[in-house]
Amino acid sequence: MKLDVCFSPELLPLYDLRGRVAVVVDILRASSTIVTALAAGVTHVFPVAGLDECAALGRTTGCLTAAERDGLAAPGFDLGNSPFGFLDPARPVRGRALALSTTNGTQALRRALGAEAVVIGAFLNLAAVAAFAMRQRRDVLVVCAGWKGQFCLEDSVFGGALAARLAPHGFDVRGSDAALAALHLWEQAAADPTAYLLQSAHVRRLNSLEASGDFDFCMKIDAYPDVLPQWRDDRLISG
Amino acid sequence: MKLDVCFSPELLPLYDLRGRVAVVVDILRASSTIVTALAAGVTHVFPVAGLDECAALGRTTGCLTAAERDGLAAPGFDLGNSPFGFLDPARPVRGRALALSTTNGTQALRRALGAEAVVIGAFLNLAAVAAFAMRQRRDVLVVCAGWKGQFCLEDSVFGGALAARLAPHGFDVRGSDAALAALHLWEQAAADPTAYLLQSAHVRRLNSLEASGDFDFCMKIDAYPDVLPQWRDDRLISG
Repeated sequence: MKLDVCFSPELLPLYDLRGRVAVVVDILRASSTIVTALAAGVTHVFPVAGLDECAALGRTTGCLTAAERDGLAAPGFDLGNSPFGFLDPARPVRGRALALSTTNGTQALRRALGAEAVVIGAFLNLAAVAAFAMRQRRDVLVVCAGWKGQFCLEDSVFGGALAARLAPHGFDVRGSDAALAALHLWEQAAADPTAYLLQSAHVRRLNSLEASGDFDFCMKIDAYPDVLPQWRDDRLISG
Repeated sequence: MKLDVCFSPELLPLYDLRGRVAVVVDILRASSTIVTALAAGVTHVFPVAGLDECAALGRTTGCLTAAERDGLAAPGFDLGNSPFGFLDPARPVRGRALALSTTNGTQALRRALGAEAVVIGAFLNLAAVAAFAMRQRRDVLVVCAGWKGQFCLEDSVFGGALAARLAPHGFDVRGSDAALAALHLWEQAAADPTAYLLQSAHVRRLNSLEASGDFDFCMKIDAYPDVLPQWRDDRLISG
């Protein structure tokens, strides 16, 4: 089995997804938020591209709605794209479905749907993703959501972290230059990933917004080691 | 001034080239070969996309022709894509023009032509590229040719090497995640870039072809510190 890393959804047409496990990663914050939502008892997540579609799903199905554009909560929705929104005792989410629209993460997920299995990866559920890949015994492609199509440090470093977990279990994680680079970046980051990723442009952008606590939360490695959002039909469920 | 790195020509539409210096990099081997050709006295290089166009230029203008596909010299041309082809005393190239068609490098160059200035970067002429950027005092975008659109370790590491040269001269080389990652990869590679890049898939591919000496040659940092291939009208000349 091989692990490869695609640094941007724009590069995904260059990869053959068939027969592979696609791990869609948008550490800040869509994939961290989806993992947290399912961990908090959300039954399933409908990832949608547009704000209108998100609002319409809320009106027609009664599900929770969450939407973000350019790092900020979009007005008129129940929640933004902060994982903390799903951890507020004053607004319980257990048993509810969620429609979620985000800038980068949803688009990356939609483009990855040709894969044999599509799961959501975050530092929060790294152990769950690694365990799933080991059970599947298929080639793995980490699909980094990036920032508006461009390379993003935290998503790429996650790819390296997953490579480091899978390497001792028979996965070739050095077969492509992208996987090698991700692994090397992770090796630089591993001693203190939070400090390392403070350099990231996206982290600096996020910390300048309303969400300075979000980054620290998203870096809690293995906080939800059993939560694996997996694509089924038209939604993400905890697999 | 900022330095940014674009890891693939496929991502170039996401970048604004206007007013910038584009440094087109295809370490293995187009940019190393172009630098070597100009250093050896070739007057100018016509980079062309197709083999037919390359052959036609040879017939109509009498220039030298060089072409490569998938790492191998294409049959029916004067030269392949090995820099050593321009260093053979038995076949002097001084005073001749050259039409060159390669898999990745030519395509990357064509896509970068919207920039204010377009130059060719290689480890061989790193000093010349850095000096040019310092004189221009413009934002710099390193355009990695990659391998069939995918991320390529040696081109990206070159981006980091240029960043390291420019950082002490007022360039912001940490403003984008791609530039940061390239710089970090270079910092890992700097002690022994040749050994580091032996891991690269492209290097392994090249070393399995006819060209095992080419890689070592292409890694001779600053071997041609005054040779700067620069785009003028329809050709690359030594700027």
